[in-house]
Amino acid sequence: MSYVAEVIAVGTELLLGDIINTDAQFISRGLAELGIEVHHHVVVGDNAERMTAAVELARSRADILIVTGGLGPTYDDITKEVVCACFGKELVMDDRSAARIVAMYRKRKNNVPMTENNFRQAMVPEGCTIFQNDWGAAPGSAFEADGKHVVILPGPPRECEPMFRTRVMPYLRSLSEDMIFSQVVRIYGMGESRVESILHDHMVEMTNPTLAPYAGTGEVCVRITAKARSEEEAMALIAPEIEYVKQALGDVVYGVDVESMEEAVLRLLKIRQKTMAAAESCTGGLIAKRMTDIAGASWFFRGGVVVYSNEAKRDLLGIPTELLDEFGAVSNVTAEAMAVAVREKLGVDIGVSVTGVAGPGPDENGNPEGLVYIGVATADSVQVQIVNLGRGREFIRTVAATKAMDMARRALERMEDK
Amino acid sequence: MSYVAEVIAVGTELLLGDIINTDAQFISRGLAELGIEVHHHVVVGDNAERMTAAVELARSRADILIVTGGLGPTYDDITKEVVCACFGKELVMDDRSAARIVAMYRKRKNNVPMTENNFRQAMVPEGCTIFQNDWGAAPGSAFEADGKHVVILPGPPRECEPMFRTRVMPYLRSLSEDMIFSQVVRIYGMGESRVESILHDHMVEMTNPTLAPYAGTGEVCVRITAKARSEEEAMALIAPEIEYVKQALGDVVYGVDVESMEEAVLRLLKIRQKTMAAAESCTGGLIAKRMTDIAGASWFFRGGVVVYSNEAKRDLLGIPTELLDEFGAVSNVTAEAMAVAVREKLGVDIGVSVTGVAGPGPDENGNPEGLVYIGVATADSVQVQIVNLGRGREFIRTVAATKAMDMARRALERMEDK
Repeated sequence: MSYVAEVIAVGTELLLGDIINTDAQFISRGLAELGIEVHHHVVVGDNAERMTAAVELARSRADILIVTGGLGPTYDDITKEVVCACFGKELVMDDRSAARIVAMYRKRKNNVPMTENNFRQAMVPEGCTIFQNDWGAAPGSAFEADGKHVVILPGPPRECEPMFRTRVMPYLRSLSEDMIFSQVVRIYGMGESRVESILHDHMVEMTNPTLAPYAGTGEVCVRITAKARSEEEAMALIAPEIEYVKQALGDVVYGVDVESMEEAVLRLLKIRQKTMAAAESCTGGLIAKRMTDIAGASWFFRGGVVVYSNEAKRDLLGIPTELLDEFGAVSNVTAEAMAVAVREKLGVDIGVSVTGVAGPGPDENGNPEGLVYIGVATADSVQVQIVNLGRGREFIRTVAATKAMDMARRALERMEDK
Repeated sequence: MSYVAEVIAVGTELLLGDIINTDAQFISRGLAELGIEVHHHVVVGDNAERMTAAVELARSRADILIVTGGLGPTYDDITKEVVCACFGKELVMDDRSAARIVAMYRKRKNNVPMTENNFRQAMVPEGCTIFQNDWGAAPGSAFEADGKHVVILPGPPRECEPMFRTRVMPYLRSLSEDMIFSQVVRIYGMGESRVESILHDHMVEMTNPTLAPYAGTGEVCVRITAKARSEEEAMALIAPEIEYVKQALGDVVYGVDVESMEEAVLRLLKIRQKTMAAAESCTGGLIAKRMTDIAGASWFFRGGVVVYSNEAKRDLLGIPTELLDEFGAVSNVTAEAMAVAVREKLGVDIGVSVTGVAGPGPDENGNPEGLVYIGVATADSVQVQIVNLGRGREFIRTVAATKAMDMARRALERMEDK
């Protein structure tokens, strides 16, 4: 059978725009991986009447309700009370969660005094499955009532995301006899419609596994989803499809089962035992930031320079002022010099560089917004590519950084293992 | 009178978790500035039946409906058709929008051929107010029917956000005789509950303007909202409150009417005509990235180094290996040396440095996750502060970067204007 889920996020701060609904995104992505359809996301404030109406509406149109937020210790945290009232459940104290909360407060250095209210966080719906929270105070829970599955999770994404991945996804998988697994093939350098047209004839014939392309920021993904009795069986169905997609699309496929280009590059750096550094002008540190978003990058990604100004290009990389004057900061020559210099300066295997116009508008030399030169230097070559990334500062910076990392990836693919 | 608004975002890619609902966030923030309450966000797929139900439900409980997404040229873009059907409106061709779309396609270098479908984007509800789209193809629109106000906007945030700010907010303001304006006071270094308790007695007495504190990532904001007959009148009500909050909270107030700490720092750099650079270890380029998110930063933010590894600290900043061996990379001494070195290396007025443990887990020398040293060097002083930022790699990096910029801000506040 196939389930329909609905995600209800509770919190007035979402309705005020103070925070963004991250929970709905990663929960939906996880549900897509499980082959569970989502028809609605709803955000509602900390208001009993409107929350009740939202839960009633969701149970009328979905099989699985996932409710996040409003599990805190204060009087306006009423999610559990409302959900339990809707399904005729009592709230009961979970002694293990209570003990965990007491221990958490004891550990705090600043000795925040614990109040009776904190024990409210240890209350759970009677007869539920409890999801232990290793990232915060309030446990999550799940129960089945009137043929509906109800999951309750804490709101803060840094608690909600690991709990959803490690506790709720296995729980949801166990609901059906057939298990659903999926893997994502990531593509950079080919548009969504081109990917679709190449895979189209193959896709329409398939029922299990299935292929579904979708677009990210400047990149495209293909999700391969299989239904089977076990993970092994599912993976056996998925593996040949991964190969098919790789064969069909060629080297625009940058990774399988990785979260991002930076993760793909870091993996390759580890496999090849190579080191990398970046010299960034218009991306202003974004490559370095993204490479170091991943824990454990430090040996492989040695560092970088943000040479936003001409003075910095001279002082940090030793790029001669005359060269900058003659060719301009946004030029083939400068991109090449930056990649070579950062590679030598940091003694790494691969140096990447980005110099261009992030906008808004053209630069003082008339180079248009979106024009970017990207360089990659290795022991035996330097390459520069020119791209025109259109408009929008954030978009230009994001795609320029991805493109630079993709060029590093291609250089790494060509290298021998150490 | 006070309005209630509902934000409906249309798009299957939102329900799959491929993209996050950015539109709902900035629209809600804008509505909060206008004093318009939001009770629900809803996300629904490109499905006529479910979209119709969502619009019908919204009109039953809100005064203003803001619908984003599904205005593209393809067959699954049906938002306008559905909304118009709900309110008994016809769609008519807007000649100006059609001409703009033709011109847009002509301008494209790669000569994507234009199809009949593209003209669908120029169709608008009869008798509506048209919001010209200077950031993309599909125009936005607004109409009033059965006492409800309906606003339709394109989905991509880089079109939707500027259109909402520059076209829809003035439109919504004109709906009521009294205009609502607000300003945000931003605070770093004091918790939300402390801010609330300091302002509490003053807040409860107020009716116009009103004060409302709320929490961001590692920071707190106070929104001051005034209702008046004109912007001037509103600002006259708001100005003394800004002064009150500044007086009451002191130097934890880092800016008024700025979007972020980086913007506050850049403003001060401009006012004081000073330059800045950053040496980043655990923040890995995040300070540089955030400073250069803002256009026009290059003269003031000269650049930085990402010295994630000890080798990079030595090669880029000349920090002696012996010093790193003796005191450790995560230490007072190293933070100080980094700030001083990056300041000298780039010849700037202020050098900031960050070195710490972003996690997960402690570093190889047993320094706990979240322990961060932050340095600021100026012509006549070097300061280092130690902070313990708790757990979570992203949180630690974000707050460490904010704290470093806050220390730069405080150093700038102490400097004389040039």
